[in-house]
Amino acid sequence: MPMTQASQTIPEKVFRDPVHDYIHVQHQLVLDLINTREMQRLRRIKQLGTSSFTFHGAEHSRFSHSLGVYELTRRIVDKFQRNYPSQTPDDGLWNDDERLVVLCAALLHDVGHGPFSHTFEKIFNTDHEEITQAIILSEETEVNTVLRQVSADFPAKIASVIDKTYPNPQVVQLISSQIDADRMDYLIRDSYYTGTNYGNFDMTRILRVMHPYKDGILFDYAGMHAVEDYVTSRYQMYMQVYFHPVSRGMEMVLNRLMQRANDLYHSKWVNIGQSAPFLIPFFEQNWSLTDYLHLDDNVLQTYFAHWLAQNDDAILSDLANRFLNRKPFKSVTYNRETDQHLLSELCQLIEELGYNTTYYTAQNSSFDLPYDFYRPEAKKPRTQIELLEKDGTLTELSQASTLVQAFTGKTNGDQRLYFPNELYYGKNKAHVSLFEPILAEIHQMTKTGKLRPKI
Amino acid sequence: MPMTQASQTIPEKVFRDPVHDYIHVQHQLVLDLINTREMQRLRRIKQLGTSSFTFHGAEHSRFSHSLGVYELTRRIVDKFQRNYPSQTPDDGLWNDDERLVVLCAALLHDVGHGPFSHTFEKIFNTDHEEITQAIILSEETEVNTVLRQVSADFPAKIASVIDKTYPNPQVVQLISSQIDADRMDYLIRDSYYTGTNYGNFDMTRILRVMHPYKDGILFDYAGMHAVEDYVTSRYQMYMQVYFHPVSRGMEMVLNRLMQRANDLYHSKWVNIGQSAPFLIPFFEQNWSLTDYLHLDDNVLQTYFAHWLAQNDDAILSDLANRFLNRKPFKSVTYNRETDQHLLSELCQLIEELGYNTTYYTAQNSSFDLPYDFYRPEAKKPRTQIELLEKDGTLTELSQASTLVQAFTGKTNGDQRLYFPNELYYGKNKAHVSLFEPILAEIHQMTKTGKLRPKI
Amino acid sequence: MPMTQASQTIPEKVFRDPVHDYIHVQHQLVLDLINTREMQRLRRIKQLGTSSFTFHGAEHSRFSHSLGVYELTRRIVDKFQRNYPSQTPDDGLWNDDERLVVLCAALLHDVGHGPFSHTFEKIFNTDHEEITQAIILSEETEVNTVLRQVSADFPAKIASVIDKTYPNPQVVQLISSQIDADRMDYLIRDSYYTGTNYGNFDMTRILRVMHPYKDGILFDYAGMHAVEDYVTSRYQMYMQVYFHPVSRGMEMVLNRLMQRANDLYHSKWVNIGQSAPFLIPFFEQNWSLTDYLHLDDNVLQTYFAHWLAQNDDAILSDLANRFLNRKPFKSVTYNRETDQHLLSELCQLIEELGYNTTYYTAQNSSFDLPYDFYRPEAKKPRTQIELLEKDGTLTELSQASTLVQAFTGKTNGDQRLYFPNELYYGKNKAHVSLFEPILAEIHQMTKTGKLRPKI
Amino acid sequence: MPMTQASQTIPEKVFRDPVHDYIHVQHQLVLDLINTREMQRLRRIKQLGTSSFTFHGAEHSRFSHSLGVYELTRRIVDKFQRNYPSQTPDDGLWNDDERLVVLCAALLHDVGHGPFSHTFEKIFNTDHEEITQAIILSEETEVNTVLRQVSADFPAKIASVIDKTYPNPQVVQLISSQIDADRMDYLIRDSYYTGTNYGNFDMTRILRVMHPYKDGILFDYAGMHAVEDYVTSRYQMYMQVYFHPVSRGMEMVLNRLMQRANDLYHSKWVNIGQSAPFLIPFFEQNWSLTDYLHLDDNVLQTYFAHWLAQNDDAILSDLANRFLNRKPFKSVTYNRETDQHLLSELCQLIEELGYNTTYYTAQNSSFDLPYDFYRPEAKKPRTQIELLEKDGTLTELSQASTLVQAFTGKTNGDQRLYFPNELYYGKNKAHVSLFEPILAEIHQMTKTGKLRPKI
Repeated sequence: MPMTQASQTIPEKVFRDPVHDYIHVQHQLVLDLINTREMQRLRRIKQLGTSSFTFHGAEHSRFSHSLGVYELTRRIVDKFQRNYPSQTPDDGLWNDDERLVVLCAALLHDVGHGPFSHTFEKIFNTDHEEITQAIILSEETEVNTVLRQVSADFPAKIASVIDKTYPNPQVVQLISSQIDADRMDYLIRDSYYTGTNYGNFDMTRILRVMHPYKDGILFDYAGMHAVEDYVTSRYQMYMQVYFHPVSRGMEMVLNRLMQRANDLYHSKWVNIGQSAPFLIPFFEQNWSLTDYLHLDDNVLQTYFAHWLAQNDDAILSDLANRFLNRKPFKSVTYNRETDQHLLSELCQLIEELGYNTTYYTAQNSSFDLPYDFYRPEAKKPRTQIELLEKDGTLTELSQASTLVQAFTGKTNGDQRLYFPNELYYGKNKAHVSLFEPILAEIHQMTKTGKLRPKI
Repeated sequence: MPMTQASQTIPEKVFRDPVHDYIHVQHQLVLDLINTREMQRLRRIKQLGTSSFTFHGAEHSRFSHSLGVYELTRRIVDKFQRNYPSQTPDDGLWNDDERLVVLCAALLHDVGHGPFSHTFEKIFNTDHEEITQAIILSEETEVNTVLRQVSADFPAKIASVIDKTYPNPQVVQLISSQIDADRMDYLIRDSYYTGTNYGNFDMTRILRVMHPYKDGILFDYAGMHAVEDYVTSRYQMYMQVYFHPVSRGMEMVLNRLMQRANDLYHSKWVNIGQSAPFLIPFFEQNWSLTDYLHLDDNVLQTYFAHWLAQNDDAILSDLANRFLNRKPFKSVTYNRETDQHLLSELCQLIEELGYNTTYYTAQNSSFDLPYDFYRPEAKKPRTQIELLEKDGTLTELSQASTLVQAFTGKTNGDQRLYFPNELYYGKNKAHVSLFEPILAEIHQMTKTGKLRPKI
Repeated sequence: MPMTQASQTIPEKVFRDPVHDYIHVQHQLVLDLINTREMQRLRRIKQLGTSSFTFHGAEHSRFSHSLGVYELTRRIVDKFQRNYPSQTPDDGLWNDDERLVVLCAALLHDVGHGPFSHTFEKIFNTDHEEITQAIILSEETEVNTVLRQVSADFPAKIASVIDKTYPNPQVVQLISSQIDADRMDYLIRDSYYTGTNYGNFDMTRILRVMHPYKDGILFDYAGMHAVEDYVTSRYQMYMQVYFHPVSRGMEMVLNRLMQRANDLYHSKWVNIGQSAPFLIPFFEQNWSLTDYLHLDDNVLQTYFAHWLAQNDDAILSDLANRFLNRKPFKSVTYNRETDQHLLSELCQLIEELGYNTTYYTAQNSSFDLPYDFYRPEAKKPRTQIELLEKDGTLTELSQASTLVQAFTGKTNGDQRLYFPNELYYGKNKAHVSLFEPILAEIHQMTKTGKLRPKI
Repeated sequence: MPMTQASQTIPEKVFRDPVHDYIHVQHQLVLDLINTREMQRLRRIKQLGTSSFTFHGAEHSRFSHSLGVYELTRRIVDKFQRNYPSQTPDDGLWNDDERLVVLCAALLHDVGHGPFSHTFEKIFNTDHEEITQAIILSEETEVNTVLRQVSADFPAKIASVIDKTYPNPQVVQLISSQIDADRMDYLIRDSYYTGTNYGNFDMTRILRVMHPYKDGILFDYAGMHAVEDYVTSRYQMYMQVYFHPVSRGMEMVLNRLMQRANDLYHSKWVNIGQSAPFLIPFFEQNWSLTDYLHLDDNVLQTYFAHWLAQNDDAILSDLANRFLNRKPFKSVTYNRETDQHLLSELCQLIEELGYNTTYYTAQNSSFDLPYDFYRPEAKKPRTQIELLEKDGTLTELSQASTLVQAFTGKTNGDQRLYFPNELYYGKNKAHVSLFEPILAEIHQMTKTGKLRPKI
């Protein structure tokens, strides 16, 4: 890559980071990217969405995470360059000309995230991965302007890393594979901020045993247990933090709230848009990149507060109140195969109490596949984790670890039906009155936490 | 205190906390208070205001801190009750009837904080301590409704703890003194989230050596070095975190931005209120408690985003851009006594470059008094820290510690003049052109970080 | 239990502990036990034997661990008494009359350990569990004298807890089961001192979800993932720390060294006993409890130093040198079924180089069973881990966790042949000379770390 | 320096370290030094001597600390070479030819320590600094053999760094100055192992702001508060850990025990040497380097155990018992100027109780000077800490920090008289009988912890 001024190194600048101690910035380009308005917007989007309603300490933003992924990538690349520098083309070792590409891709990999990502995407048909690429490629963004200083095709290179079509598999796998800088940062960071320990793993050891080879990234067999430990940590974080039923209860409230707002906008009964100007293009399903970049967690929550204060629609303001003042829906697990009949029955009861079940019940499935080997037939085949033995053989991780084998190809999670918490057993033990018989039936069906027939 | 249902204990509930591991809730009353909308609002107000622009990890809210102060108070009171339970009135030991009072006061001590407290208060003449009491006392709040379940005069008791007029000095000093649960929590919490270590001190030891006596709280002489360590940590956090020049540079941008909005509202040139409905009562200086409780960090930043998008006033949208996209004012220190002439000269130069110095320069003094003994003549006399020797004598901390003596009664900090960062030397070394001579003079006056005459 | 003075509580004393922050002592009896010479002897016996030769930080003693097990037990019992106090006999809840029994058993559970336990036991036919009971029961020890102050049968009670014959299964399981205070302390403590993270698990959560029931100790189903995490941590510590091949290489040197000393003593060629007076009763296989209590790590190593300095026997002083100056035997893994022939061949080659293979080779098998359910037919049936669901059902851990199921009933580990490190490939690449052909053959068989035929 | 094989780099080897995560070894020479018997001996000498009797977790050895000092030095030198590489002779920047010199000096700086250093040195007139140099310079040691592989004069170079006569002040100050790798490692390490937090300081920040200049090592002014923090941590560790009265009580027992052994040896009443062969040359005051290297903590404690078991001399075996079984002498502080008369009076009383005060009382002064500027007239003038301002000026630390100024040139500590703990008030409250009147007087003089007249 021809050296332009933008890609030159500068006297190191640092950002204090509670997880990695310091983030080290060594290129003007990286500093300029951090200072773009698109990156700064990530300060206003929480990394864990509604999880901070369960783990109050986890109020960190996607901005912090992005710096963390950048820093981890930088450390890995430093080790690669020190220990495995490419000498000849195609020797499968690390070519340091890729450094800026991988650092920029690491920093920008989440720049397209919107507020409360998954929920927002479902209601308004957006896709944060596409938008990440659009932000990188559109000449209207500051990110693109900064990247173009390197070369005209530099933005396209970065976008292709995000897209996984970049030719060098080492670069792609550092940003996106079953053990990449993204996942490593979020496991440790989310552990730190939630105050759980589950996401901790032996990162320094993993960094020691990983190295480049012609098809991507390898791990020395000696590091097998550290990789096992990482896979287990990931599993634990999904089970204990990311899939926490209470966070999902808040997510369901949010989903119903946004759905109601959208429905109201189109019904024209009430003027939902006036107090939520940045949302209008999304209600209209006619939005530009600029419109998208106006959105963040603050904006949505402010609009919820407007709606609550205006009180034009009972359902809308009730749901806004539940969200802003943390009144999560409660839930029971159910079995998709056998419990359909019970689901209908329970929803029926809730409807009889006067709730509009379109907005006051919700089904949520959360399943994760902690690890899998490469399956060419899969919809999204995974890049399997390879271990290098002393005699040069490659072994796929689940072949070496009985522990990982237990996870391989198996999803973990559950399905839950969500409903208003005032219908929950614990809340009403004492003064069940007017609707007592119905409520008592709901209690019977839900009180063990698993959906059951009434007696 | 007669036991009402509200004040009864419940099976312990816990909240995971990264700083204290778990927050333990043992009374329905405390749980109900946490669930009020006034407490939940604190989730939307950052504990450290603009500091997260310097320490990106420090995005935690006043809600987390409030839980932390509650938990620390609970632990201290547990120890008091186990080790120093009062046997007879006036024995100066711990009377556990005070438990609920002190726990509620701890939890609620910051409930009246507004967004970006100090800056907002200056522009709009609000006072978070008065509002904390109002929230506790006003029958319109959920907090008050919950507190009244204990007894009609319970809200007034809590408010008097905040006001320091509560008769039991132990209760008052646990919430507010030179070494109280509030300060202990924020030092450790802010350390954790900023990723600095400066605020750490030996909390378990301090909790071990503190105990009640007739005039408040004492510390065993054996814990003197732990108290020293606490005082030093507090000093370090002020010097290194709370007074960081970059955070203050963002605070100055915010101050000028809100000042401009207020001025515009009254000038009626542009309709600043329409896109900022919750601010109108404050522009009008005619606001209710409900109006105040509508505000949080999200709301203000959303309005800034509206103003930036509307672009009705060049100064307003420029300042909004600086704030939202983190472009802090830069600064030089100066000497209040001797540098007045230089200040005028520098502002003059900035004005000549076309800046309206009312909105584009700002003076900021940040000074702290790490420790002081009791001085009856002072405006706010401090409750001095007393150490108890084995033979029963009390010694005031600075008499026992040469280290603390070095701090006693001495303020630390500095005064700075803030101005746009594009005028700063480092930014423009290369392409100073049109306004070159003026800029060069500004550089001469500011480039060492201390205000100096031009040559 | 009738209250004697010895069992009364005292003003709390604390010992600073890096793992548990403070160890809290609340009974004179416990303090007196800690101060006995038998407990103080544990300061001179390393917790991890030869592991500190691999993990240089892990120099902690069995004394620290014993205090840790005591403290954890104390915390668990405190929770039991607060949350599950027995009201009526046989209600299956916690009877606080058991407190002193379980605390003493926790503190004393390892008091019979000798220096470099397993190795010493093999050579000299001692058994630390029997000796633990002997120390508790023998009227010659200070431990027994202290315990007898409670009551004449108190020592026998404590010994029966160690022996697992004590009638209350809660007490037994706290000290010895698949998830007991002993294991919890050593996993966390050994992690802390080795500087690995593998042994960390969510101890506070496990302490929250454990409670007594009529058949012992239960865990709430809600804590299933925390228990999973504990089982995984235990597995990782075995794989990565306790079974580390280099530590075992030192253990093999130690084994051969003590074997040689024993053989020499009986051969009478050299006077091995004069410089090792405390060992004579063991060479003679005629030792008293007093003799046993003379031994510790210091004493053995001092005698090794004497033997090295005297240099009366070439093999003895060579092995003493290898041990004192950290020259571990190297190893290859082998398959017990298929590699017997190769083993003989390799030993033959080593013998041809002039080594006495009795003292210069050693086989070591290290296998662990991370978890198992109760199997009545097993030699040492395990107390399985039970989870309590909301509806009152008990579920055995491996039924609830696919992760634990992967471990259940499966041993992990390997078998290795150990030989002098100077025969190892890495050491001699350059200057293989006189014995070159034999050495080259040894290298062929061992250089990949797995025993292989020569080519 | 001409490159010999010994000084060449090797593929990096690591040692897991709880304090620095990993120790990185990059030269065969360093690895060979670590493996010498002189370095391995340090595994058998505790870093903190008798402190582990107070802080039971602090059982770490001088070996761990030596690796830590090496690693810190390596990290500093890496930063120097990356950021401040010398371009021309005498530019005052870092010359990487010094790397091996400084790394070896760091690793070896404590190699001459004996068991329980200060106490042993006092009784037997040894000097660990001289012996460190002797080990480096003597052709009989493995250390010297390894060093000579670099060049014939390499040992002398390393010795001159220890001696502070090496010409490059940067190298000398890295190993020995008021803020060097030695102190930084021990503060953090001793904090970690004692479980106190007092020794923690912001090491990463200090490493960032330190750099070489022509007269040694400088710190950027921006790092002033981090340096303040370090000075305070050092002060706290001395006050709270190193000078702990209980550890000194064990040191006094040790001192009296060795004094008694020495006196007995020369009195010839009992054959003290037979069971303590390695001590004979020291009793005789005629010892070689080999004799010295036979000694370690294990050896001394084993001999104490021999003496205790033999029980030939009542005082000797009593003192051995006190040491091995942790029965520290108790103490009172006193004022050297005014309390001489009281001291005599108290010793007189102790003598009347039948104690030989030569062996059963001891005075101990522990004073430290946390920081001082350079005072040419001082016995050991200190290299002051210099801060570099943005305009190039140097400022001595205490001129910049009011906090450090409070420490500067002031010693902290106390003087204590030690005596058997059975004479201590707390022990005998109940059953003071036969010698009651004398004991009561002793109690009166000592019970507040400060020496006082009897009433």
